Amino acid sequence: MSFDVSTVKALVFDVFGTVVDWRSSITREVAAVGARLGVEADWEEFADRWRAGYSEGTRDVREGDRPWMTADEMHRERLDLLLDKFGMTGLSDKETDHLNRAWHRLDPWPDAVEGLTRLKSKYVIGTLSNGNVGLLVNMAKHGGLPWDVVLSGQLAGTYKPDPKVYLSAVSLLGLEPGEVMMTAAHLHDLHGGAAAGLRTGFIARPNEFGVGSAKAETVVDDSIDASASNYIEFAEKMGV
Amino acid sequence: MSFDVSTVKALVFDVFGTVVDWRSSITREVAAVGARLGVEADWEEFADRWRAGYSEGTRDVREGDRPWMTADEMHRERLDLLLDKFGMTGLSDKETDHLNRAWHRLDPWPDAVEGLTRLKSKYVIGTLSNGNVGLLVNMAKHGGLPWDVVLSGQLAGTYKPDPKVYLSAVSLLGLEPGEVMMTAAHLHDLHGGAAAGLRTGFIARPNEFGVGSAKAETVVDDSIDASASNYIEFAEKMGV
Repeated sequence: MSFDVSTVKALVFDVFGTVVDWRSSITREVAAVGARLGVEADWEEFADRWRAGYSEGTRDVREGDRPWMTADEMHRERLDLLLDKFGMTGLSDKETDHLNRAWHRLDPWPDAVEGLTRLKSKYVIGTLSNGNVGLLVNMAKHGGLPWDVVLSGQLAGTYKPDPKVYLSAVSLLGLEPGEVMMTAAHLHDLHGGAAAGLRTGFIARPNEFGVGSAKAETVVDDSIDASASNYIEFAEKMGV
Repeated sequence: MSFDVSTVKALVFDVFGTVVDWRSSITREVAAVGARLGVEADWEEFADRWRAGYSEGTRDVREGDRPWMTADEMHRERLDLLLDKFGMTGLSDKETDHLNRAWHRLDPWPDAVEGLTRLKSKYVIGTLSNGNVGLLVNMAKHGGLPWDVVLSGQLAGTYKPDPKVYLSAVSLLGLEPGEVMMTAAHLHDLHGGAAAGLRTGFIARPNEFGVGSAKAETVVDDSIDASASNYIEFAEKMGV
C-alpha cells in the first residue's frame, strides 16, 4: 500500500458489477420470461441494453437534463421499451414489476460475501451505489451482503461520479474524506471518489460485461491507492 | 394481532431507550470520567440532564426554532454546559469528544440482539432514530445490532415525531406506509408513525429512566397495533 491503511475507518462499495454480477443474473431472468412467452432472442443483448438505460439515465440526471428519478424508475422505463422491442407481450403490470425487480435479486460475485464479512470485522462497510436504498436493501437480503449501512446517490439527490455523492456519504458517516475508501471495478467511479478526497481501491471484474469483453477495465493508473482481483485478496491487503 | 401481520414487510425501530439502555451506559461513562477527575456527583442526574438537552434540541429543530443540528452536535453542546456545571474541568478537546461519543457506545437491552436477529430472518429491519447516521452505525458495531438499513431523521432533515421522518423512511424503502411498522417504547413516537400511516408496535421498557421511575410508559392505548415486553416476545408475535 502506498498509504497508511490505519487511517481508513470505513469502506464504501460500488455495487453493480463490483459486488454483484448484474449481467448473468439479468440475462437469466429475462431469458426465463422470454421462454415463458415463447420468444427467442439474444438475452445478453437485452441485459446490456437494459443496463445502458440506467447508465444514460443517471448521467442525464447528474447533468441536469432530466429531473430526479430512482434506479427503479429508470429500469422500468427502459424495460417497457425493451419488452416492446423484443416482442415480449402479454405480461401483466405485476409481472412486469416483478421482472423490473430482477435488479433487486442480483447474485454476488463468488468472493463478495466472504470478503465483505472479513472487512466488516475491522471497518465500517457500506454501499455507495447509484441504486436506490430499497433496491440495495432487498439485494443485500437476497445475496446475504452484510452491510453496516446502505448509502446511495439517492441520499445526495444526484448520481456518482458527482462529488456530492461521495461527500454526502462521508458526512453521514461523520468522518473525514481521507478516512473513507471507495472501492469499485470502474475507474471513473474511483476518480470521482478521489476528487472528493476519498481513498480508492480497485477490484478487477474482467467478466462484468461477459467473458473476455474488452469493456472491462483491468489496469489501474497511479492515482489508485490499492487494487486486488477480488474482495478476499483485498481484505488481506487491508489487514484482515 | 388486530391486523394481518403478513402485510408488514419492514420494521423500523426507535433506538434510544427502545433498543439500547442509554441511561445505564451514559451514567457509567460519566461516572468513570468523574472518578478520574476526582469529582463526586449524582451521575444519573448528569445522564438525565444530558439526555434532556437532546430532547429539547430535536424539539427546537422540529419546530423551526433552531437550524438543523445533528444529535452529536446537540450532545456536545449540552455536554460542555454540564461539564462546567458539575465542575469537571481539565478534559482535552479529544477527551471531551470521546466522552461525547459515549452515545455511540450504548449497550443494547438484553433481549435486543436475539430479538432483532429473529425479526431480520423474515423482515427488513432498520433504525428510525433521531440519532445521526454515523452515531447509529457506530452503535450497531459496538452492540452487534444486525440492522439491514440505518434510517434517521437526518435523512429527512427534521426529527420525529414529524410525519416527514416516517414518510422518508417508507419512501427510501420503496414501500407503502402500511407495509412498515414503527416500534418504540414511547407512545408519542408511535402516534407520529400512525399519523403517517405506519403500523405500530410498543415495546415496554419500564427501567429506561431508572428502576421504578414513573416516567416510563407501560400501558398502551387502543391505537397501537401490537405490544410486547421485549423483542423476543415481539418476534414471536410477528411469527418468527
